[in-house]
Amino acid sequence: MIRGSGDPRARPILESVREDRALFSLVLSYTRTAEIPGITVAGAGPDSMMYTPPADAEYIEYGHCRCMDAIPTTPDGKPTPAVLTRAALISAGLPYIAINAGGPVRPQVPHIDAGIEPGGNIREGPAMTMPQALHTLESGRQTGGKLASLCDCLIIGESIPGGTTTALATLRGLNLPGPVSSSMPDNPTSLKEDVVRAALERLGMDDPVSVASKVADPMILFVCGMLQAATESTWVVLAGGTQMLAVLAMASKLGYDHTRAALATTSYIAEDPGIDLGRRVDAISPVPVLWTDPLLERSAHVGLRAYAAGFAKEGAGAGGAMVAARARTGAGADQMQDAIDAEYSRLTSGARAPG
Amino acid sequence: MIRGSGDPRARPILESVREDRALFSLVLSYTRTAEIPGITVAGAGPDSMMYTPPADAEYIEYGHCRCMDAIPTTPDGKPTPAVLTRAALISAGLPYIAINAGGPVRPQVPHIDAGIEPGGNIREGPAMTMPQALHTLESGRQTGGKLASLCDCLIIGESIPGGTTTALATLRGLNLPGPVSSSMPDNPTSLKEDVVRAALERLGMDDPVSVASKVADPMILFVCGMLQAATESTWVVLAGGTQMLAVLAMASKLGYDHTRAALATTSYIAEDPGIDLGRRVDAISPVPVLWTDPLLERSAHVGLRAYAAGFAKEGAGAGGAMVAARARTGAGADQMQDAIDAEYSRLTSGARAPG
Repeated sequence: MIRGSGDPRARPILESVREDRALFSLVLSYTRTAEIPGITVAGAGPDSMMYTPPADAEYIEYGHCRCMDAIPTTPDGKPTPAVLTRAALISAGLPYIAINAGGPVRPQVPHIDAGIEPGGNIREGPAMTMPQALHTLESGRQTGGKLASLCDCLIIGESIPGGTTTALATLRGLNLPGPVSSSMPDNPTSLKEDVVRAALERLGMDDPVSVASKVADPMILFVCGMLQAATESTWVVLAGGTQMLAVLAMASKLGYDHTRAALATTSYIAEDPGIDLGRRVDAISPVPVLWTDPLLERSAHVGLRAYAAGFAKEGAGAGGAMVAARARTGAGADQMQDAIDAEYSRLTSGARAPG
Repeated sequence: MIRGSGDPRARPILESVREDRALFSLVLSYTRTAEIPGITVAGAGPDSMMYTPPADAEYIEYGHCRCMDAIPTTPDGKPTPAVLTRAALISAGLPYIAINAGGPVRPQVPHIDAGIEPGGNIREGPAMTMPQALHTLESGRQTGGKLASLCDCLIIGESIPGGTTTALATLRGLNLPGPVSSSMPDNPTSLKEDVVRAALERLGMDDPVSVASKVADPMILFVCGMLQAATESTWVVLAGGTQMLAVLAMASKLGYDHTRAALATTSYIAEDPGIDLGRRVDAISPVPVLWTDPLLERSAHVGLRAYAAGFAKEGAGAGGAMVAARARTGAGADQMQDAIDAEYSRLTSGARAPG
């Protein structure tokens, strides 16, 4: 059973994923906040950080990356959650498209170019100008509307290094306190709090878009626009953890149809008592929460077992892709874990993906 | 009645457009062949030529351009056929996405970036290297497969200045002689023949992709790849005239499912005895031909009446968009002409498009 699927609000969404046309989209973005030393491990080092989103997008498409030699890892070699995403999408034959919304490096795969600039380091200054913020939101609305006209259920994941810090600043800036997740088991909370405090000092009596322009990142505003436009005509699943909380917070301030949306993630996020995801979603915008246990403590691969020990946990829409794939094929959590292990075995054996 | 709709091969395609999910895609590209003086009027002057495709894409989306002040015109002010395309798509609520496949100027609208370089001037040298040609074909296949998974009928138009000359060279290079159309009533045939002769002199005993790398343009290979991949799972309508003949020729050499494809264009192309479109399609790859009369001799606007006098005739997928819109809504040719006139009245009055 997909967890949370007993919620009657979730049923029509799961039914749509199972029977209608579903599309998995991955929003690639960037904030220079990621360059603050120690803030994230989404990349093997500071110079490779901006390659992580396009590398995730290329890997999900081809089974290998084009802009770098190997797949993105943490500095000590733990693999990107895009491994889970790819295994899930392929197991269910779910169509996939990447969207570059602020990444400085173009992915070498046909993708949607949303025409967005990278976000600034929010410790040092605003994330973007107000015209850039409005453009980002508008481009998200256009893209979301376009994709919604092509499917019955739009799943939206993200890949943005440093994004949990900008998500925390956005939630605080909208007066919604609470912790965020991290790609590290020892969440660098005090460093994040320092960055967020510096960012929030620049806020006055601001409207939500103005708050975002000062302390968020392009992904949050872009996905907020997608969510607003797509829920006008279709079901939407936000695939992610605390960063998608920031999207929900922004969208609830600006207005959207929450009866057509859900959040989907991994058990590593949904069952973390320190995050308390379900209660916080209810407080921000009451959408159903769906999750699945990747069972990675059973994995044959030490790099994947690290997920169960608190590394990475979620990202590249992994939880949402797994929930959607299980809804579509009826696979159990154990079958999904087999598919993930098989994909990682292929990767580490150096074999090329078929096709 | 949509002309050609009596062909039993066309019926399931028209039925799919009417009842299922149809998507209109516009492939933007560029060949430096367009910079040969006198070869095309697709742009107000040589410096503006490379802005024509992105301007078409922006105008179809927004009702006005972003990369230039007005819509693309010929040097004496006749409007781009994208006016017909936009009027048709809006009248039927057909979803639309632009694909940049070789244009040096990015359109300022969310679009698919296919990662393709502009084509070279075929009078002076090859259109592209062989690795570029293979990449262009492969990127077309990926993009076509992706879009086919999101719709039941994929309509593909193009915007590439100078494209009829590279189409002629491609047809000749594949040993398929015959005239091509032009955006001018006095088709600069002898200039085109000179350019094509210079290009063909570089050919030896080449395979089709090698021919294309020497004398074609990126659009022809890219749309060929889209057609090959998309006909594996869905209906495909090539929206255009003689340039789409070159695509059909390339695809028939490389292999594709012609039972899932059709060509759709305007009567200005389909009924031109000098082009003899139907017979040539049958000789190249037997797909049904659908067309509609834009009735622009009745237009209140002198710029549009020029179409009926032999200017522009087709482009930006205009004929295919009109055929699809009529199939979807049941509108007659006269209602479509009213919609085109209304769109052009709005444009020339300087009013912003709603929304």
